[in-house]
Amino acid sequence: MAAHPRSPLAPDRLPDLPPIAGVRLATACSGMRYKGRDDVALIELAPGTTIAGVLTRSLTCSEPVEWCRAGLKGGKARALVVNAGNANAFTGRAGLAAVESTAKAAAKLVGCKPQEVFIASTGVIGVPLQAELIVKVLDGLKRTLTPTAWPRAASAIMTTDTFPKLATRRTAIAGAPVTISGICKGSGMIAPDMATMLAFVFTDAKLPAGVLDACLRPAADKSFNCITVDGDTSTSDTLLLAATGQARHATVKSANDPNLRLFRAALQDLLVEMATLVVRDGEGAQKLVTIDVSGAQSAKAARKIGLSIGNSPLVKTALAAGDANWGRVVMAVGKSGEKADRDKLVIKMGGVTIAAKGQQVDGYEEAPVARHLAGRDVHIAVDLGIGKGTARIWTCDLTHGYIDINGSYRS
Amino acid sequence: MAAHPRSPLAPDRLPDLPPIAGVRLATACSGMRYKGRDDVALIELAPGTTIAGVLTRSLTCSEPVEWCRAGLKGGKARALVVNAGNANAFTGRAGLAAVESTAKAAAKLVGCKPQEVFIASTGVIGVPLQAELIVKVLDGLKRTLTPTAWPRAASAIMTTDTFPKLATRRTAIAGAPVTISGICKGSGMIAPDMATMLAFVFTDAKLPAGVLDACLRPAADKSFNCITVDGDTSTSDTLLLAATGQARHATVKSANDPNLRLFRAALQDLLVEMATLVVRDGEGAQKLVTIDVSGAQSAKAARKIGLSIGNSPLVKTALAAGDANWGRVVMAVGKSGEKADRDKLVIKMGGVTIAAKGQQVDGYEEAPVARHLAGRDVHIAVDLGIGKGTARIWTCDLTHGYIDINGSYRS
Repeated sequence: MAAHPRSPLAPDRLPDLPPIAGVRLATACSGMRYKGRDDVALIELAPGTTIAGVLTRSLTCSEPVEWCRAGLKGGKARALVVNAGNANAFTGRAGLAAVESTAKAAAKLVGCKPQEVFIASTGVIGVPLQAELIVKVLDGLKRTLTPTAWPRAASAIMTTDTFPKLATRRTAIAGAPVTISGICKGSGMIAPDMATMLAFVFTDAKLPAGVLDACLRPAADKSFNCITVDGDTSTSDTLLLAATGQARHATVKSANDPNLRLFRAALQDLLVEMATLVVRDGEGAQKLVTIDVSGAQSAKAARKIGLSIGNSPLVKTALAAGDANWGRVVMAVGKSGEKADRDKLVIKMGGVTIAAKGQQVDGYEEAPVARHLAGRDVHIAVDLGIGKGTARIWTCDLTHGYIDINGSYRS
Repeated sequence: MAAHPRSPLAPDRLPDLPPIAGVRLATACSGMRYKGRDDVALIELAPGTTIAGVLTRSLTCSEPVEWCRAGLKGGKARALVVNAGNANAFTGRAGLAAVESTAKAAAKLVGCKPQEVFIASTGVIGVPLQAELIVKVLDGLKRTLTPTAWPRAASAIMTTDTFPKLATRRTAIAGAPVTISGICKGSGMIAPDMATMLAFVFTDAKLPAGVLDACLRPAADKSFNCITVDGDTSTSDTLLLAATGQARHATVKSANDPNLRLFRAALQDLLVEMATLVVRDGEGAQKLVTIDVSGAQSAKAARKIGLSIGNSPLVKTALAAGDANWGRVVMAVGKSGEKADRDKLVIKMGGVTIAAKGQQVDGYEEAPVARHLAGRDVHIAVDLGIGKGTARIWTCDLTHGYIDINGSYRS
């Protein structure tokens, strides 16, 4: 695989992730696909860690996704093994065997049940995964576990990503300090369907798995489920949230506990940062595009309209060219299938109202909009004027880089 | 607008379209947007001509589409005026006024009611259309009408098209010879939603408008409604079928009349040829891709799965690179939302079975598939193995050409 230039939308610097009590990380090179870089991460979780997750709804999902779906029912986690380069998707019985042998080996090492080992794989689809290459490096991984290897872990799970993705928040539950940190990867095949690409979030909060799950789903809905790079939903989308329970806060038994308000706000904020990091590394992306939809019939309708705009290749190529071609936004609203009234639609770019009442507004000047579109951060606002539904969607532009990357991914 | 190189998928030569009794055509240059080329076509239809049509379902459709929708209720047509360069979409009251003044002027010239004049416009969205530029050239158009100007009319309606699109069939109704001919345009913003881009079909058959409509809809469903270039549904999609009634065949009162079998087969065949001409001129297209889906839960499910594959940028960029990346086909099946069983899915490319029973088949060799993908005509077959639904979808690959064309369309 050719290395691709670092995205111009990458953050200037990586955040420093503090240790989270109960989480240790290590990485290694399995030699499975990439040369000269680590491609396996082991994350060990202390006894007592609870876990929640959302997984792809793809009907052709990967073996690791099926494995995680089963494991989440137990709500307990002791280890996470992630490899990059091979998605172990559409690999039949051999794929299941590969997951099982990896989980068994890791369970033995950590001292837990195989069901408490979570597995995620990312990379090419349909190629049998050589689990023995992962199993072979597990011993060494165990010996090098540290609480500080966040950047190495974030790098080891990259495929076409051009920068590692990390984020952290300090928050509190019932006045006691709590940390939430996450790493994720993703660059293409990004159109999560009620789930995400690979994203792993860790906290020292002490929360039952059911509470964790109830915190995670709505936060995922407003973050990872609102991003798109290319409208292609992965077979491997996995978002896991593990809580080691080592923070010392009052007991929480329900996601609706007022003591969880700060934590839930911090979690959603963190997930939005992580999700937009994925878009910032969208294959070939030169611009981060935020689309605010308001006045739709419902929140669901607003999200669908936002994604229709965010997935339109004509909108995305126009943005790449810095072309204020708002007619393509009108087209994308019209094709979404959601209720719209042409004569009530308002379209803004960069805060400038371009169209309203079924036509371009009087005295519209393109120059300030063109200047806005020439930047890295583009904002589009669409108001339907027929209801109260809102959604915020993040996407990127569609450039030659996307074609370059995806016409050569396997070679 | 920059001229783009002729599509390598263009037919070697244009077909010769014979005159159709009752149809005369002329073209002119309005100077509205393009220089040095005709951009308006007038097609005069003899008294007694019936008409049927299918129009975009976009909720932000253009003024001409609204005008045609109203006109189709009358079922009679005497003229068709088409302009390229401005879609007259999202142009508010001024847009309606432009359609009305064009229809009135053409009606006066031809000697009919304005409602019997059909209008279609294609080009940029949101820019007011200067109807006076069209009205100004109508007189001259009327004087130069001929039964043979098919290639000129097909060229005058082009926008980013790189070749004019024409097709013809000779058929028979109750033993009497009948001709069907059509012209169409379209290259980007192609994902017809129960409708098409601009396509105009003419026949000398003598059929009531209701019968015409009943013949047209199912034929459109298996042709124009099964193509995609970029998944973007136009605001202007229009397919009209006009019958001048000048052929001398037995009276037909129902679309189910056995005497219509040959005619209906020829019509569908013609529409498939026209629809695939649009895909052959897909923006940046280097390959024509035919996707056969079988074994789906229903025909509707098969079409949705086929379009999910045909709209996937990852599938389309892989095909552009000649990469037999069938894992991306698996992904596209999985994201379609239609019922699928990973372990029953069979995927073939160029007739070679690549994957079955949830994994790559034993002894699969990529070389013959790679040779097939290096050609201009690519065939993908997907069998779901769970039902009897089938569909055939046509798409093209996604190349740098698409980015070039759409990053510069307005400039």
